[in-house]
Amino acid sequence: MTLINENYLKLPEYYFFNEIEQKINAHKVVHPKADVIRLGLGDVSQPLPGEVVKAMENAIRELSKIETFRGYGPETGYRFLIDKIIKYDYNARGVSLEPDEVFISDGSKSDVGNIGHIFGRDNIIAITDPVYPVYENAAIMGGRSGHLTEQNIWSNIVYIPCTPENNFIPELPTDKVDIIYLCYPNNPTGVALNKAELKKWVDYALENQAIIIYDGAYVAYINEDDIPHSIYEIKGAKKCAIEIRSYSKTAGFTGLRCSYTIVPKEIIGYTLMNEKIKINKLWNRRATTYYNGTSYIVQRGAEALYSRKGFKQYQTNIDYYLTNASIIRQEMIAAGYEVYGGVNAPHIWIKTPKNTPSWRFFQELLYEINVVCTPGSGFGQGGEGFFRFTAFNSRENTIEAMSRIKKRM
Amino acid sequence: MTLINENYLKLPEYYFFNEIEQKINAHKVVHPKADVIRLGLGDVSQPLPGEVVKAMENAIRELSKIETFRGYGPETGYRFLIDKIIKYDYNARGVSLEPDEVFISDGSKSDVGNIGHIFGRDNIIAITDPVYPVYENAAIMGGRSGHLTEQNIWSNIVYIPCTPENNFIPELPTDKVDIIYLCYPNNPTGVALNKAELKKWVDYALENQAIIIYDGAYVAYINEDDIPHSIYEIKGAKKCAIEIRSYSKTAGFTGLRCSYTIVPKEIIGYTLMNEKIKINKLWNRRATTYYNGTSYIVQRGAEALYSRKGFKQYQTNIDYYLTNASIIRQEMIAAGYEVYGGVNAPHIWIKTPKNTPSWRFFQELLYEINVVCTPGSGFGQGGEGFFRFTAFNSRENTIEAMSRIKKRM
Repeated sequence: MTLINENYLKLPEYYFFNEIEQKINAHKVVHPKADVIRLGLGDVSQPLPGEVVKAMENAIRELSKIETFRGYGPETGYRFLIDKIIKYDYNARGVSLEPDEVFISDGSKSDVGNIGHIFGRDNIIAITDPVYPVYENAAIMGGRSGHLTEQNIWSNIVYIPCTPENNFIPELPTDKVDIIYLCYPNNPTGVALNKAELKKWVDYALENQAIIIYDGAYVAYINEDDIPHSIYEIKGAKKCAIEIRSYSKTAGFTGLRCSYTIVPKEIIGYTLMNEKIKINKLWNRRATTYYNGTSYIVQRGAEALYSRKGFKQYQTNIDYYLTNASIIRQEMIAAGYEVYGGVNAPHIWIKTPKNTPSWRFFQELLYEINVVCTPGSGFGQGGEGFFRFTAFNSRENTIEAMSRIKKRM
Repeated sequence: MTLINENYLKLPEYYFFNEIEQKINAHKVVHPKADVIRLGLGDVSQPLPGEVVKAMENAIRELSKIETFRGYGPETGYRFLIDKIIKYDYNARGVSLEPDEVFISDGSKSDVGNIGHIFGRDNIIAITDPVYPVYENAAIMGGRSGHLTEQNIWSNIVYIPCTPENNFIPELPTDKVDIIYLCYPNNPTGVALNKAELKKWVDYALENQAIIIYDGAYVAYINEDDIPHSIYEIKGAKKCAIEIRSYSKTAGFTGLRCSYTIVPKEIIGYTLMNEKIKINKLWNRRATTYYNGTSYIVQRGAEALYSRKGFKQYQTNIDYYLTNASIIRQEMIAAGYEVYGGVNAPHIWIKTPKNTPSWRFFQELLYEINVVCTPGSGFGQGGEGFFRFTAFNSRENTIEAMSRIKKRM
């Protein structure tokens, strides 16, 4: 008799974003002619940068000839890409890394989910609330969330509130925690941490022998000075932080699939007997045993982003999305909404009018004006009463959605 | 203090195939001019089929234009590929499947590793011995292997010996088991199961409410009649078997990354309270929470294999490799070795001369004649005293390696 992993039953059957898709699809079935504009899901709309296209075409040509064919690549990624990441994303910001501290992967969602596998089940995990749901979902499914308490909260998870009152800047936990998930610029609030704020967390981790999992998927959207692009810009972070980056929102790779994770060799985890173990070795073991590398073609595409032309091309897309963000900010403020984020991030976080519950507001927008937002409560209890817009749609659709919002008032 | 998953410490630091790579690299450092021929690692050498190349070039062109750009695809794969898989790989063999029973992934190594996550930790797992090491490695790393007994064996794992005495055909376990990993055509022995033999396992699983994880990575190499191409050709298998397939060895996708896993909705797992749970729902939850889909370009490449031209093209490569396999078989037999497999599989499984331990024989071949084999003991205790050759190198290199073997005698 095959026993299942019962932790899966502790979650709703469908992942949050799939639930949204189902509701949109149901709406479209009833109203097939509805012109639905999606400002909900974080998917991009601008095509791939020309340099990426060229590089991938070359890579395919290589694989089509026996002289240049390549099969399996290194599970943790090709040096041609790793070396560029180190040089341009890290050395350029004063951070040194060794090649075997960089792990190329097929997406930060995979890494964010799978990273938990190398940790014990009894760590106390801190997540900000609201936040990207995979951190908590993966902890629950992996049996690392403890038990559900009478307060309907997981015993191994500490939720750190991010609210308008604290400007969505998380405060250090009063309880001792072991693993801290931080996502900055933040999804969904669109708020960034400055160096002083991030330093507090690095210092906390160093003092408490905790590990920070730093999700930097939206780094490319940082506009303002004093916002660190990498957690390793903070002194001591290489002893306590894993950083996960993605090309998805940086360069339109959502359908191509490429990301990377930095696991410095200085980071230490512990056995129950207090033995020190290098986290880098564990992640390397996982990557090599459970994975066979990211598509060669896609890695060549990512490499092209580090050329001068490639950089300019994706920067143009980022500027385009940031202009969308700014339009959404302005129009929503003008329409009387309470608006956050959208300056150093493609996300705009908005209070629902009159404390309307998030899912109800989602339905109102969808059914009344065919505009899709993301209901805030899907990002945690702290997201209830908010909704998220993203800046990834076209300029035209963004403006049209704003005009529908205005008319609705 | 961050606790690690101590199950990782129960394994050697390096994955088996990485250990081999390290030894080859060390040899090359000392002998930089050595003409090393690899008949060890299962990587292909023939370039991509032309139809795959064309389809991927088209896909890139789509992503380069705003009108045809696509971002995130469905986490479980595009219907254009799923529908072809159902039609050509299953309907054509009398098996019906629904689209949401097919999960496209980036590689069968990922799925073989990750599938364990949906199961409980207390199942008794059966694996054949020798076998592809990921089944056992992933069980150990995931904490599903139980404890190490005094006999130096994992308490939750039953090893089913495959030896020359039983023609490498595994016998049903006498103990009751819950999860059974079967890989046919087999890696490493190169032996296939016929319908009657596979039926025994399906019947066993049905009787014992066990689940079979059927790794069909080498199905394309089946030559003889009466060898099932899918486990679902056996009556009842849709109630008890998950099937994993890969394009890696079928069509040279080792560097592109694409595979699929079939999880029929009829398969049931159990909670400790004996509640019945659909395994399909659990795997869907994992795929959607931990994964963001396989690269669009690569899925288009895989789709092209189902065209008439695409089929012919990859079939030519398979024939090429099978001719290599037959050359290796003949030459090794002529050289006095005891040889198995290589008829319905790209693997040839060979007894080391005079019971030389596998790793020692690996070193002898590497140091003396610069030929790489895979030491059998890496596939389990039952592989000790054997080594594996694969048919994936070029004709020229295969012939040259055989001639070196002959001269060495």
